[in-house]
Amino acid sequence: MTYCLAIALNKGLVFASDSRTNAGVDYVATYSKMKSFVFPDNRTIVLLTSGSLATSQAVINAIKRDLTNPNAEFDISKGNYLHEVAQYIGDLSQQEQKRHADAMEKTRSNNESSFLLGGQIKGQKGKIFLIYPQGNYISASDETPYLQIGENKYGKPILDRIITPSTSLEDAARCAIVSLDSTIRSNISVGPPIELAIHRADQIEEPYHNVLTTNSNMYRSVQKQWNEGLKRAFDNLPRFDWEK
Amino acid sequence: MTYCLAIALNKGLVFASDSRTNAGVDYVATYSKMKSFVFPDNRTIVLLTSGSLATSQAVINAIKRDLTNPNAEFDISKGNYLHEVAQYIGDLSQQEQKRHADAMEKTRSNNESSFLLGGQIKGQKGKIFLIYPQGNYISASDETPYLQIGENKYGKPILDRIITPSTSLEDAARCAIVSLDSTIRSNISVGPPIELAIHRADQIEEPYHNVLTTNSNMYRSVQKQWNEGLKRAFDNLPRFDWEK
Repeated sequence: MTYCLAIALNKGLVFASDSRTNAGVDYVATYSKMKSFVFPDNRTIVLLTSGSLATSQAVINAIKRDLTNPNAEFDISKGNYLHEVAQYIGDLSQQEQKRHADAMEKTRSNNESSFLLGGQIKGQKGKIFLIYPQGNYISASDETPYLQIGENKYGKPILDRIITPSTSLEDAARCAIVSLDSTIRSNISVGPPIELAIHRADQIEEPYHNVLTTNSNMYRSVQKQWNEGLKRAFDNLPRFDWEK
Repeated sequence: MTYCLAIALNKGLVFASDSRTNAGVDYVATYSKMKSFVFPDNRTIVLLTSGSLATSQAVINAIKRDLTNPNAEFDISKGNYLHEVAQYIGDLSQQEQKRHADAMEKTRSNNESSFLLGGQIKGQKGKIFLIYPQGNYISASDETPYLQIGENKYGKPILDRIITPSTSLEDAARCAIVSLDSTIRSNISVGPPIELAIHRADQIEEPYHNVLTTNSNMYRSVQKQWNEGLKRAFDNLPRFDWEK
């Protein structure tokens, strides 16, 4: 499994992903699930992947292929709106899944992938999209300004408590680390390092990018301080009548 | 859906359940999912249910039927070990599911139920079991002294951080309320009131039982103080380099 998260804020976009992939329990590996594409003075795009690693990689390869093919009908540097890029990635994903559909059915395997797409086209607002395995997609709303793919439940409560569109990029990034770390603690199929990217609104450039290994100072001190803070919060909860 | 939780501690057992049931989104109702049975000087038993309400109710009815039938082969007041009671409830659940299996298959419906069984037979240690829809069951371990049924993921991280066998009954009960409340906030299929039961080790009597409605003081102040504590914990997280 996987856990990836994208947050759309007034001040920009925050992305986070874990790095564990597994085919069964005896083939566990570490892969980056985050890819960014920058077209200076035009658009910044970040793509997060979950599901079949083969499909995810094939889609990334097809994106790169189309970018270098002058005869390609479309590529991610084109389209006036980011949802056109979402549609294009959904189409690539469906094409790749269909290519192997017969073999998948015969072996009762699954090669579905989901994607989180985020970015900003110059002059427009930054946007995030969740692209389903079926190729259709949704964008986030002001009421729920984040989207998740993969093991999304463990890390959802903290997002629901903290994130609003006016949250700062840094707070949202900290919340993303906590959301990822809670998931990593509770589900063995999600693992470090945590990749983090921050796109500041209207800065069409390579996003801030950081790989938080379990040895990194930031990750360790978030873990330690969050754990201590939770324990303190827990110790302050009200007593039952008979404890007073 | 549902979320039920049982925790086995050195000092006793803690149980919690939500109260929402739904058949589709247009038939949502409030039902208790917690039932206790006390046989003075012999055993205390608490049963939590999730899944098909029809199957859950039929199993409870069968338990009561067998208790009043002097010719019943087995009932929950019998058996030298609590796992025999778990096996019996698993059998009742399978019988009930099989009775309707053809009709269920024809309408592609599902009448599976899962159960959490906990209790203590006098002179033995208190125990908790998770009974699967297939009728088989597992008990908790010292490393993971809790069991969950239903929407178990949202509320798991806080249990993983707080609960050990030496946690006090009151702390475990507070942790259960937080775990339930986090799930209620993040998943509309889980809803209040929260039912809470506490069985003190070696006290073979009616467990402490409380129904925490959204208006109850205990529930409201746990919600408020937990929310404030989390916000404080969050505000104390380390800053990124550029924030310093």
